[in-house]
Amino acid sequence: MIPQLALVPGEPAGIGPELCVRLAQQPRTDCRLLAFADPDTLHAAAAALSLPLQLLPEEAIARQPGDLRLRAVPNARPSRFGEADPANAGAVIGALLQAGQACLSGELDGVVTGPVHKAVINQGGIAYSGTTELLADQAGVAVVMMLANDIVRVALATTHLPLRAVADAITAEGLAHTLATVHSAMQRQFGIAAPRIAVLGLNPHAGEDGHLGREELDLIIPLLDRLRGQGMDLVGPLPADTAFLPARLAGVDAVVAMYHDQGLPVLKYSGFEQAVNITLGLPYPRVAVDHGTALDLAGRGVADPSSLFAATGLCARLARQRTLVP
Amino acid sequence: MIPQLALVPGEPAGIGPELCVRLAQQPRTDCRLLAFADPDTLHAAAAALSLPLQLLPEEAIARQPGDLRLRAVPNARPSRFGEADPANAGAVIGALLQAGQACLSGELDGVVTGPVHKAVINQGGIAYSGTTELLADQAGVAVVMMLANDIVRVALATTHLPLRAVADAITAEGLAHTLATVHSAMQRQFGIAAPRIAVLGLNPHAGEDGHLGREELDLIIPLLDRLRGQGMDLVGPLPADTAFLPARLAGVDAVVAMYHDQGLPVLKYSGFEQAVNITLGLPYPRVAVDHGTALDLAGRGVADPSSLFAATGLCARLARQRTLVP
Repeated sequence: MIPQLALVPGEPAGIGPELCVRLAQQPRTDCRLLAFADPDTLHAAAAALSLPLQLLPEEAIARQPGDLRLRAVPNARPSRFGEADPANAGAVIGALLQAGQACLSGELDGVVTGPVHKAVINQGGIAYSGTTELLADQAGVAVVMMLANDIVRVALATTHLPLRAVADAITAEGLAHTLATVHSAMQRQFGIAAPRIAVLGLNPHAGEDGHLGREELDLIIPLLDRLRGQGMDLVGPLPADTAFLPARLAGVDAVVAMYHDQGLPVLKYSGFEQAVNITLGLPYPRVAVDHGTALDLAGRGVADPSSLFAATGLCARLARQRTLVP
Repeated sequence: MIPQLALVPGEPAGIGPELCVRLAQQPRTDCRLLAFADPDTLHAAAAALSLPLQLLPEEAIARQPGDLRLRAVPNARPSRFGEADPANAGAVIGALLQAGQACLSGELDGVVTGPVHKAVINQGGIAYSGTTELLADQAGVAVVMMLANDIVRVALATTHLPLRAVADAITAEGLAHTLATVHSAMQRQFGIAAPRIAVLGLNPHAGEDGHLGREELDLIIPLLDRLRGQGMDLVGPLPADTAFLPARLAGVDAVVAMYHDQGLPVLKYSGFEQAVNITLGLPYPRVAVDHGTALDLAGRGVADPSSLFAATGLCARLARQRTLVP
């Protein structure tokens, strides 16, 4: 069966709507898209880019460039490109929650999301720390954030923490959950029967036998040994500076970094345009763009759609895979 | 004048000696090399690789492939490739100190060093944490470690610390010294009149206005503003994950990372073979290979000499530049 995916543009004043219009120009055989969005915003984006756009009822079938099925989530106020309006925070979050609920109910098979402007949502009176957290809370699960491009997949054991809080946030229980989630997602979503996961050390040189920190000896190494005993194929803990060398990445299906700035610089350097953000641990696949709202570029037709295209293709693949693996 | 450089192979049981033999096969017009090494080890490396080697007295001139001027620093015991012997720790460190002293006295113009095996030196009864620290102590100065390849130069505000110690180790005084050293070295050694230096934040997203840590607001931003007032061209603090994107690096002469695993993964990923390690702040240029002793490869002729070649070329360039800039 062809997967049915929700497509949520995100901030209406940003580049999300025009990227969705671009996406609608492409013929697709890997999924059927259903946009959760404000129709006027999508029409305005199409007009700004001089691209065709026909918003279709949900029961229709997209047949030609610009066809896009829509479940309307109207803005509170008309939006203008480049001028994010806190009054529309409810519509932005509402679209995400409706899409998430449609996946939880089994009506849809996955969600592709564009960029959301964190500060504007909070200014609109909605406590929001990220779409990953929003969808995790809705589903009532703990998730793992993974960034991926054509070169490497990087999952994070901790995400948005001050650096001085990182070491204490690495616990055996938390890291075990991260590794189990990545392992399971590699198997169930990515279809890799025996995934090999590289795990970075917390300290430089992975602690160098305790000379540069003891977390590897006291926590990480014993945990990896325990999980290996449960059948997981884990490499490491590896020194972060050399873990991404091509020879080291060969045969590795995912890298687990201990914190944000340890894992993401190489990921973004090695292929920023195609990079996507995958939420692991949800009961459905969710893939997001790995870029921001770019308010300064919105409506000008210059924003690069590569990340949204890659996110959509990957989400379709993950949704299809889930139907194959019990 | 053509610079006179010391060449120190490092651990005799590792790949350093054979890399030096390879280097001696190359015609050089940019510098004159003087090896500080055990002659038998160099001959053994040449024999293992079936390459010519003629060790010349210091007053001679290298004219043909394999000519290498030597100041002998004999090993205590014959060394065998792959079997590092703590008995030779004194010779390894002695060669480095002799080379450093020759530069401090003005006899030579710079030092190129191969890899040293830290544990073996310490087993040999010599407290040693790295050649950078050894030469800094000898010269009585504080230095900055910079790693560089053809893509980017990365200097470190802190080097080999446990991750949990990093945040407290970032002080205004220390960071000011790092930035002043990098700025001065870019001008005096690299010949860049008005260097632009990108400075990474300590926290993810460079703290995101204090939401992810306050060190940027409380320490880094005020310091950068103060140093800008003194004429330094500083960009940042930048989020580390996007700072290395090609568009961001354009026009930047050096990146200062706050800690090891924030700055070095991209550096090594973007060009490991050509990467070199530059010590900034010494009264002479010192450039080292950016790889280890590779005991398992020694004597087999398979070790890649690119890093030593790059280190030598850069050291010659830096030494020449110093004679041009007051």
